[in-house]
Amino acid sequence: MVTTQSFVDEDILKRVPRWRDYLAAKVGFRNHWYPIKLSRDIEEGQVVQTMLCGENILLKRIDGKVYGLKNRCLHRGVRLSEKIECYTKNTITCWYHGFTYKWQSGEVCDIIAVPDSKAIGKRKIKTYPVTEAKGVIFVFIGDEGYDPPPLADDVPPTFLDDDMTIFGHSYPVKSNWRVGAENGFDGIHVYIHRESPLVANTSRSLPLGHLTTSDAYKIVDEAPGPKGVYDDFSKHTSFYEGKVEGRVVVRGTKNPDGKPRRTAGASLWLPCALRVDGFPDGELTQFEWYVPVTEDTHLYLITLGKRCQTDEERTQFEHEFWNRWKPVSLEGFNNQDIMAREASQAFYGNDRAWLEEGLIEEDLLIVRWRELCHRHNRGLQLPEHLW
Amino acid sequence: MVTTQSFVDEDILKRVPRWRDYLAAKVGFRNHWYPIKLSRDIEEGQVVQTMLCGENILLKRIDGKVYGLKNRCLHRGVRLSEKIECYTKNTITCWYHGFTYKWQSGEVCDIIAVPDSKAIGKRKIKTYPVTEAKGVIFVFIGDEGYDPPPLADDVPPTFLDDDMTIFGHSYPVKSNWRVGAENGFDGIHVYIHRESPLVANTSRSLPLGHLTTSDAYKIVDEAPGPKGVYDDFSKHTSFYEGKVEGRVVVRGTKNPDGKPRRTAGASLWLPCALRVDGFPDGELTQFEWYVPVTEDTHLYLITLGKRCQTDEERTQFEHEFWNRWKPVSLEGFNNQDIMAREASQAFYGNDRAWLEEGLIEEDLLIVRWRELCHRHNRGLQLPEHLW
Amino acid sequence: MVTTQSFVDEDILKRVPRWRDYLAAKVGFRNHWYPIKLSRDIEEGQVVQTMLCGENILLKRIDGKVYGLKNRCLHRGVRLSEKIECYTKNTITCWYHGFTYKWQSGEVCDIIAVPDSKAIGKRKIKTYPVTEAKGVIFVFIGDEGYDPPPLADDVPPTFLDDDMTIFGHSYPVKSNWRVGAENGFDGIHVYIHRESPLVANTSRSLPLGHLTTSDAYKIVDEAPGPKGVYDDFSKHTSFYEGKVEGRVVVRGTKNPDGKPRRTAGASLWLPCALRVDGFPDGELTQFEWYVPVTEDTHLYLITLGKRCQTDEERTQFEHEFWNRWKPVSLEGFNNQDIMAREASQAFYGNDRAWLEEGLIEEDLLIVRWRELCHRHNRGLQLPEHLW
Repeated sequence: MVTTQSFVDEDILKRVPRWRDYLAAKVGFRNHWYPIKLSRDIEEGQVVQTMLCGENILLKRIDGKVYGLKNRCLHRGVRLSEKIECYTKNTITCWYHGFTYKWQSGEVCDIIAVPDSKAIGKRKIKTYPVTEAKGVIFVFIGDEGYDPPPLADDVPPTFLDDDMTIFGHSYPVKSNWRVGAENGFDGIHVYIHRESPLVANTSRSLPLGHLTTSDAYKIVDEAPGPKGVYDDFSKHTSFYEGKVEGRVVVRGTKNPDGKPRRTAGASLWLPCALRVDGFPDGELTQFEWYVPVTEDTHLYLITLGKRCQTDEERTQFEHEFWNRWKPVSLEGFNNQDIMAREASQAFYGNDRAWLEEGLIEEDLLIVRWRELCHRHNRGLQLPEHLW
Repeated sequence: MVTTQSFVDEDILKRVPRWRDYLAAKVGFRNHWYPIKLSRDIEEGQVVQTMLCGENILLKRIDGKVYGLKNRCLHRGVRLSEKIECYTKNTITCWYHGFTYKWQSGEVCDIIAVPDSKAIGKRKIKTYPVTEAKGVIFVFIGDEGYDPPPLADDVPPTFLDDDMTIFGHSYPVKSNWRVGAENGFDGIHVYIHRESPLVANTSRSLPLGHLTTSDAYKIVDEAPGPKGVYDDFSKHTSFYEGKVEGRVVVRGTKNPDGKPRRTAGASLWLPCALRVDGFPDGELTQFEWYVPVTEDTHLYLITLGKRCQTDEERTQFEHEFWNRWKPVSLEGFNNQDIMAREASQAFYGNDRAWLEEGLIEEDLLIVRWRELCHRHNRGLQLPEHLW
Repeated sequence: MVTTQSFVDEDILKRVPRWRDYLAAKVGFRNHWYPIKLSRDIEEGQVVQTMLCGENILLKRIDGKVYGLKNRCLHRGVRLSEKIECYTKNTITCWYHGFTYKWQSGEVCDIIAVPDSKAIGKRKIKTYPVTEAKGVIFVFIGDEGYDPPPLADDVPPTFLDDDMTIFGHSYPVKSNWRVGAENGFDGIHVYIHRESPLVANTSRSLPLGHLTTSDAYKIVDEAPGPKGVYDDFSKHTSFYEGKVEGRVVVRGTKNPDGKPRRTAGASLWLPCALRVDGFPDGELTQFEWYVPVTEDTHLYLITLGKRCQTDEERTQFEHEFWNRWKPVSLEGFNNQDIMAREASQAFYGNDRAWLEEGLIEEDLLIVRWRELCHRHNRGLQLPEHLW
């Protein structure tokens, strides 16, 4: 293997010793679980091509379970997806020379053009561990022989709770995944949401900015379990009047009945998930992921969770998700974030930007997140893993 | 700052010691004045985004005066122009977190989402000196703390004369600025203009080529004042018959009344301006600029000057500029230069080209220009200045 | 000359010592003859622009003979083809300053804008040896002063035989030339052709795969004469049943009358030609070239040869070529190869791919071909030759 050390120049990396690995993680961390599709996106027998952390992957659902294979024939390197040939339920055949692989093991079980080849039964293509939970398909991007930890270690707490009902949708975004994560967790970017339809649709408060305090946030990094940074909004200072040169020029929205009906807190979790408590409305929780795809794109997978005890509650929530929250919040509120991330990418797409940004004290939690990632990631996705 | 030494490889630069800095000046020289817009392009209160020598700049006219700011928020690096928010006459607010800057000083005077931030009043964004003359807006691309010289040092002599009336227009060109400058000053490229509508429109002569002589040109580089190379066409040898294999195959145009009614001279001035005396007609002077924008584009800003003593003369000249010279000369003659420059860029866009070109003796003044630039530029625009 | 050592990183090249030069030959080998056009593509007096092994070339037919010139003026590097000016039969004039070149010698014979220049008669542009045979125009890409060998050394045996009548057509392909050559010679890729219209159109057999044996192939590399690898299909083992998990899932085509009416053999020749004996039908021979154009494109020039003794036979074959073989075989069969090559390019376009491919024993002849190229090429096309 001809190895490139890193995507990012070592001279730049050594300038940020406390979060070096985060800066180096241009296409994500290795040996973590990532959501890649919603379960409804892959039906029984369907073969779906996707890219995760720069790796080309084929997924197929067989007897209900989803399997993942590297989308590259080991013989001449062509994409199996160029022309999909599945002669049997459990195999996929390369269109070029007929190399046939088992979905379950990646093993070459037949070669149509060379039926007696010694390669049969000996060589194999990389397989990807896949699991499903809450209607979401998760893939493990890992090293050969690395034993995947439980999914629970890589998703925000409460997501897997039995009574948590989840619905979601995903959006492609033209920015690096880290730009996505930092935008989501950023306490002062709320300024861009002041004209969101969500504000009028709910009777929530929405300040122009809110600042964390030293007793509001908490680093969660005891082993085992998920690693994250939690920020309790109830202890924040919020601002509702925006002044320029001493004059109020823009106002936030205050709940008309006077109660501070607003988001309760936000937390960011390895490898790339945000949980927002009490959002988009009091009894809901938003779980969203910034899934690395390429250096300059990520999949923005948004889910809403609600604790439901009965089928009726679940049906009611499903209806509400599709008819209220998807248009008003996922698309009316979070699309403003997509615009901000894509605009930020022009800057952060240049590695030097991370040295020349001008963070202020109120960006403290962003820095804590970077440091947490540096300490607790399970490996770096490197150029040699990619193609 | 992680510094890239130069746009051009040092191995190539050291091959041309007499004009090294010129070859290195891929996006122009630093600490010079450049025209960037015509005054009519920015109205009172209007915010205009532009790029000059690779730097993203925002311009606004306030109470008649134009101010320039770096088009990048110092916080998270986004372009202010992504969504322009000007709450007060003298400020611009970043759409992302509400960082608000004074146009006059670049100072952060407010942050909407963080009204009490310590950054307020302490940090500032880069400002650009701007001046206007003869209906043209000039911006100074300079180092922090570099005191701009008078505009007169960076424009061709006579341009600023009191009775010189100027009208102009600008065109984007897909070539490096140096390819533009050399095309304009080149005494033998006149061959491409033999079928220009300008020739029929005026009763001028237009040879197929004309060669300078040692007593025809002059290097102007006494300090202070503008630095340039002047070429007196009256001392040139001109050719009106083009021969191939001994046979005349193409002819230039000779003024029918026998008088040598033609361009009187041309001169090229730092940082990037050409003056053509007696062009496009006897009593006119063309002043034109090849303003660096990116590595492979420049702004071709063409102006015509005429000495006018009365308002009537000025009005008459204005009418003539728009109705005669713009279509017939700026677009009928100089568009042929644009085609030639864009065709040359395929070659000169490769840095090695400058070592492999085959200049001939008649290109002497091009070389003198390169040497002059090397000796008298006030600094190099480098990669670290750009983004 | 600022020299880049190679297109391919030395660390990668040294990993394949037995075929290093082949891996390095990204845009082909130097000092070889290449077909570039069919004779019918250039009529008397016509000037045609083309690219071969990354070099920009102009061709013109003068009094029946084709001449080749570098398509770059030696003065300012512009393409002569930007605006072609040919004032006399034997010359071409650069549109920019009137540099005029003799097609036969490349010599500057006149400069329209500088009639007395010392460069006239002294300087010259590169010329390319051109020859024609069998209705195909061949150009020699060679070093200054390298004496071209006979064309016969660079084409497959029998192509130049007196009674061999040739017709052909060419297709642009978006893959490197080596991917083309290996696809053509590959004995097991026949799997992709199982649904070609050619199979139904002829009464030929077409297995799903066929394997060479140690006594079936022959390395031809005695000096002088063409160098190649010959594979005799009559000694191959062929497979007509494709099995997956023990079940026949796809079948090849067996000649219904039981006779093995099929391709007799294939051979691959330096610099980039394949001969297929008995293809697309018994009495025909296919000669095809994978002509390097750029790093990731080649010209796929396909010709069919048939031994004809009379004009009537030739006319009959010409009719058959255009009305049967071109649609059914060149386009019905070989277009499947084009798809496979373009799909392979995504992999082999990355130099590391050549170290990470997974060739199997049955790819032995591909490796022999690489080694032959390494031993017998006459030079490498390098970055410095290209522009």
